[in-house]
This record gives sequence, structure tokens and C-alpha cells, in this order.
Amino acid sequence: MVSEKIIRSLAVKTPSKIVLLVLDGVGGLPVDGRTELEAAHTPHLDDLASRSICGVTDPISPGITPGSGPAHLGMFGYDPLKYEIGRGVLEALGIRMELGRDDVVARGNFATMDQQGIIVDRRAGRIPTERNMELCDLLQEEIKEIEGVRVEVRHGKEHRFVLRFSGEGLDGRLEDTDPQREGELPKPPTPLAPEAERMARIVELFLNRANQILQDHHPANTVLLRGISQIPAIPSMSDLFKLTPACIATYPMYKGLARLVRMEILETGENIVDEFRALKESYEQFDFFFLHIKKTDSYGEDGDFPKKVEVIEEVDRHIPVLLALEPDVIAVTGDHSTPSLLKGHSWHPNPFMLYSRYERIDDVKVFTEAACARGGLGRFLAMDEMPLMLASALKLKKFGA
Amino acid sequence: MVSEKIIRSLAVKTPSKIVLLVLDGVGGLPVDGRTELEAAHTPHLDDLASRSICGVTDPISPGITPGSGPAHLGMFGYDPLKYEIGRGVLEALGIRMELGRDDVVARGNFATMDQQGIIVDRRAGRIPTERNMELCDLLQEEIKEIEGVRVEVRHGKEHRFVLRFSGEGLDGRLEDTDPQREGELPKPPTPLAPEAERMARIVELFLNRANQILQDHHPANTVLLRGISQIPAIPSMSDLFKLTPACIATYPMYKGLARLVRMEILETGENIVDEFRALKESYEQFDFFFLHIKKTDSYGEDGDFPKKVEVIEEVDRHIPVLLALEPDVIAVTGDHSTPSLLKGHSWHPNPFMLYSRYERIDDVKVFTEAACARGGLGRFLAMDEMPLMLASALKLKKFGA
Repeated sequence: MVSEKIIRSLAVKTPSKIVLLVLDGVGGLPVDGRTELEAAHTPHLDDLASRSICGVTDPISPGITPGSGPAHLGMFGYDPLKYEIGRGVLEALGIRMELGRDDVVARGNFATMDQQGIIVDRRAGRIPTERNMELCDLLQEEIKEIEGVRVEVRHGKEHRFVLRFSGEGLDGRLEDTDPQREGELPKPPTPLAPEAERMARIVELFLNRANQILQDHHPANTVLLRGISQIPAIPSMSDLFKLTPACIATYPMYKGLARLVRMEILETGENIVDEFRALKESYEQFDFFFLHIKKTDSYGEDGDFPKKVEVIEEVDRHIPVLLALEPDVIAVTGDHSTPSLLKGHSWHPNPFMLYSRYERIDDVKVFTEAACARGGLGRFLAMDEMPLMLASALKLKKFGA
Repeated sequence: MVSEKIIRSLAVKTPSKIVLLVLDGVGGLPVDGRTELEAAHTPHLDDLASRSICGVTDPISPGITPGSGPAHLGMFGYDPLKYEIGRGVLEALGIRMELGRDDVVARGNFATMDQQGIIVDRRAGRIPTERNMELCDLLQEEIKEIEGVRVEVRHGKEHRFVLRFSGEGLDGRLEDTDPQREGELPKPPTPLAPEAERMARIVELFLNRANQILQDHHPANTVLLRGISQIPAIPSMSDLFKLTPACIATYPMYKGLARLVRMEILETGENIVDEFRALKESYEQFDFFFLHIKKTDSYGEDGDFPKKVEVIEEVDRHIPVLLALEPDVIAVTGDHSTPSLLKGHSWHPNPFMLYSRYERIDDVKVFTEAACARGGLGRFLAMDEMPLMLASALKLKKFGA
């Protein structure tokens, strides 16, 4: 990938349209000799593969399993090693919090401490979500601001919540206070950079107040913070790539990631059919669409091979809707692999296909990991997908004289 | 490859075991239509290939022929462009010198100078090794230390010796004194960094003393130094990768390279059978094994195609010993290619195969350069072998949230 400065200087606005269809975690591993993609009946994807150039992509670097944050940034054309998405940011995006650069967020756990302050349960016995809501309301009522910094406490599920501090010039580079194991004292909020000293003091004041407020609420008598972070200062897709991009996704976290690079978030229903309908309905207004399918990943995480196959087949049935729009460029891929066999994200490269009248069609006839690995694009970094899509949409000028 | 900081933060200690079998210089070029690997009868390696994922690796970068130092560092997961192994260090490792960070070593030549000090023979007529031993003893007896820095002179073969300076805070960044051609004066020991000025003065004092001592020992009446260097400050494999690694090798230089990254060096005999026996005997105590076969490279360097084929076949016969141990991950590769046709190291990528139950098996059925080049891993940097081995042994956590 060339530098942002170079890509910015090369990108031009044109009417051509690009659709990036992401089947989250689509890549797999063989079970009884076949991967999920190999087991799925996908006539439309296979037909598209036979008219495309194929390859496999490494989300970060060979062998590295990515979280959703870096995996998506890479696909969007941003260096995932340069722009870090903290755990707190990801959780906040996941509960629909809209974040600005002046927000510092953390993933919080209600926890149990003994009289010496030692953590005896990092999850407060997994208190019910209703209890969590009550406690978050209580904290919110009692702590609205600290030293001019606004404080927001929003419940998640069971013992989890998201904590936000909002104030000009906050710097979220702090260590976790969660000691990661029981039988230890919580760690003090420690700044990782001198600029974060003020934030450390504010977090400490928050924790002291929270401990007072919660003291009679055993087992949830304290809180632990992890992934204290803020959104990176990241250029927009419009600035870098001269695109007018839109996101179609059902899960808040992916909408949040798209919002980080200033995609427009389109309204859509919960189902795959709704997502393709949203694409059709908004097709005239944008020149780049990120269409995100979540459930391939969810069923991979569950270790549910047949259900993951079903989702792939369901997507396949909607490919004609996409083709009918006649985009100039279509890319189909995953953000990372989620083999049912591993019940989690993995390091295996993503199958990738690129359809454009300006590409060299290879002899790959099916959209599978193994077929794509023998494709004409070979193996490359996910970060390079964006320049490839832009190029084959004739949106990049020549570099150098 | 991600940064050391990242890989260190991702690596976890687990019971799974990895064996990296390196056939030094195994890659070749066709002679009468077949490479050494293609000519060799290797049923066990081929069977393993058919159950593995294959690829080819560039030791450094396409087109670059590596020395043994950088080629091995790359395979061990270290950036060979970041950690330089000087000629002096490599020679010292080759004669079993154990080096610390306070040692500066140089490759020395006995040479002949005329009365004006001009070098007339850079190798002193290739004096016999016995003469070399006498002269090294003489120098050692007369020069034990200089300004508190300990001096050690150890003979090699013919006109070659290794010179070591040991003292706290020494900095070995000096230019060679060897002018590289006859008819010129030796070059003064010139520091390449201000911190090396003291070292330059000490080397100069050494050279003056050596010239006095050798003045009546024509043709060996002076010495030339090359590759003045010290071992790089390199993190251990245990620190970076959370491994408890062991090295099985017959040649001192490879043991020395393994010692640089703090592998345990296992006792073994001189033959391939001994090396596989050592693997079996120590299998319980380590979780990473580097098993090094030297003679594929030696015969490649000799231009002896049939003998190189024989060594490959001998290794093949021992593969069942390796398989019987049932390692979680097996990687088989070379550090660089040494085609008999070229009688030396070359830039050609190494065949590589990775066996793990968590990899996507490709359709490669034989372990050859051409078959691996069509494998599912494609072409990648040797440095990325380590993250891949760690990942497929489930020893790497997810990167990012």
C-alpha cells in the first residue's frame, strides 16, 4: 500500500460505482473434507467468480488473527497497525454510542471486592442485566461530571457497561484497572503518556466515587475498567479516496466502524433481504457501498457449520439483486476467517474476488478459499483491496511522470 | 510481519509443539530437467506435503541471496534487515566461541606486506594451519590485554583466525582494515560511530603490537581485519514468542545462530540419524525444535548434485521418526537455496510446507520447488514463517478488539 498522501493525490471523483460485499468471517477450515464455502451451494457467487479475478488476502499480516476493528479498517484501505481501535471504542460503537475525538471510553465490569479491596469476582457473579441497569442509573445520577468532564454510564449485558468521559483535550492512553485475575487489587489508572495524566486523575476520582456509591451493593460493590481508549484521528474516505460511501449493516458495531471513516449509515432491516433492498433503494446516491453480512461470523463463532453454510447460501440467492444494479466494480470477501472448527476468528487468509470489466479474468470457477488461493491476484494484504477496487473503477490517476 | 512489540503481546505459552525441520540450501535449479528435490525419491516428504499447506518463501526479499546469518534469523521470526550478523560474529560462532554483548570480534587474515607497508599478499601465501596455530599462540602470549580490554586470538584454517576483544561497553562499529586488494596500504581502523572511537584506538594499538611481533615472520608479517562486529541486542525466543526452544544441529555456526536467540543447544552426534534421535530423546522438554540438516547445503556448494539428492533421501527416510512424535505443527523448508548448478547460495525462494490440523490443506502432492510455488500459502517472506507456525499451533491471541 502506498502512503495516504500518495493515494489522496491519485484518487479522483468519477461516476463509477463500487460495491464491497463482506461476509464477515466467511473463510473456514475443512470439516469432513470441506470448508463452509465448499459445502455451500452458491451458483451465483461461483458464476461471478468465473467472471472475476480472485485471490486471498491477509487481514493484517500472515499468521495474525485480527479483531473486527483492525480487520475492517484494513478492508476500508486504512493501515490497521497505524489506527488502533481500543476495546472501549469497539464496545461503545456496539451499543450505538456516537463517538467524537473528545470522548474517552472504557469497557466496564461490575465486580466484587472484599474488605481489603481485593477483587474476588471480576464479574460480580454475572449480575442480571436489570440489576446492571439499576446500578448504571444510580452511578449516572450521582456522577454527572468530574472536574468539568462529562461522565456517561451506559449499561450492557449482565455485568458489562460502557463508561464515557467527554471533555476537550482528553487523552485516553491509560492502562486497564482490571487486574485480569481474581485475588489481586485493582490496578490504579496509570497513564501511558504524560498527556494522559489528567485523564488518569479523573478516572481515579470516578473510581473513588463509584466505590462509595456501590459500597452497599454487594456483589456489585466495585467496577473494573478495560480498553480505555478513544477513536483515532483518521481521515475520511471522502478525503482519502474521493468517495461518497455508504454502509449497509445490521449490527451497531459495524455501523460504528463505518462511521469512523465517515460512511453514511443507511437505514435497513434486520435481515439479509433488507440489506440488499437498502442497496437497491440508495444505489443512485452513493458511489461506494459497504454491505456487511454478520451471521456468517456469528455461526462460525458458535461452531455451527450447517447454519454458516445456510447464511452463505442465503447471500448467494441475493446476488442477482446486486448484479441487476450493474456496478462497475464488485468485490466479495470476508474481513477475517471464522472457521466453525475453531469457534472464533482465525489467521487464515480471506477469499477475495474482484469483478470489473477492466480486470484480467483468471480460471477460478468457484468462490472458495482453495480456488481463490490459486487465483490471478495471488496473496496480498487486505489493505490493498481499496486501491485495487479504486483502480478497476478507474478512480486512480497515474503515479509519477 | 507485525512489530516485535505486537507479536510479544500476542504470543501465549501453550503445551502444543512445533518442529521446524531445515534442510539447509535445499532449493535448487534444474540440471537435465530436474532440481535436486525433483530428482530425489522422497515418499515420506511427499506424503507429508499432501497433508500440509505449501508455499514458497523469500529469505529476505525477492532477488536477494542471503548469507546463513540473515537466512536463519528470518526463519526464526526476526527481521534480518534489522539485526545484522557481522562476518566476525559468524566466524566466531563457527569456531564455537560463545559471545556476549561485551565482545567485539573480527575475522583476521595473516597477510604479507612489503617494506613500505603495502599489502602484497592478502593471505600470506595461504600458510599451513600449523603455522597459523604457532603465530596465533605467539600473538596471544604477547598480547593479553590492551587498556583493560581482554584480547583473544584463535586460529582457524590456513591464514584465517578470529580475534576477540572483551570489555564493558565496547562498540564494534568499525570499518575493515583489509583493503580488499593487493598493492594498497591496509586501511586504518575507522569508527563508523562516535561510540566506537575507543574501539578504533584499541584495534590500532593491537595492530601496531602485532606488526612488531610478526616482523620477522614473513610471509605472515602482518594481519588484516574484516567484519569487525558484535552480536546484536536481540530479544530471546522465549521473550518474543513464549517458546521454550531447542536447537539440534551438527555444525557450530548454526548452534551459534540458535544461541543468539537463546535456544537450548542439544547434544547430538554428527549424522542425520543422531539428530532425529536427539529430537526423540528431548521431545518432552521443549515446545519448539529447530532441526538443522547441513549437508544439503554443503553438497550444493560443492556442485555435487547426486550427493545433495542422497542427503535429501536420507532425511526423507527419517521423517517417520518425526511423525511418530505427533507434533502439533511441522514445518519443512530451507533457509535459502543452494543450487548445485550455482555452487553457492542463491536468491530462489525456498519450498515450504506447514502441517497442522488447523491449516487448509492444498492439492500439492510432492515436496518440490515447483509444486510448493502453486501451494495454498503462495509466496511470502521467511520472517512470516514463525507467526504462521505459532498461529497454527494456537499460540497467538487475537490482535485488536
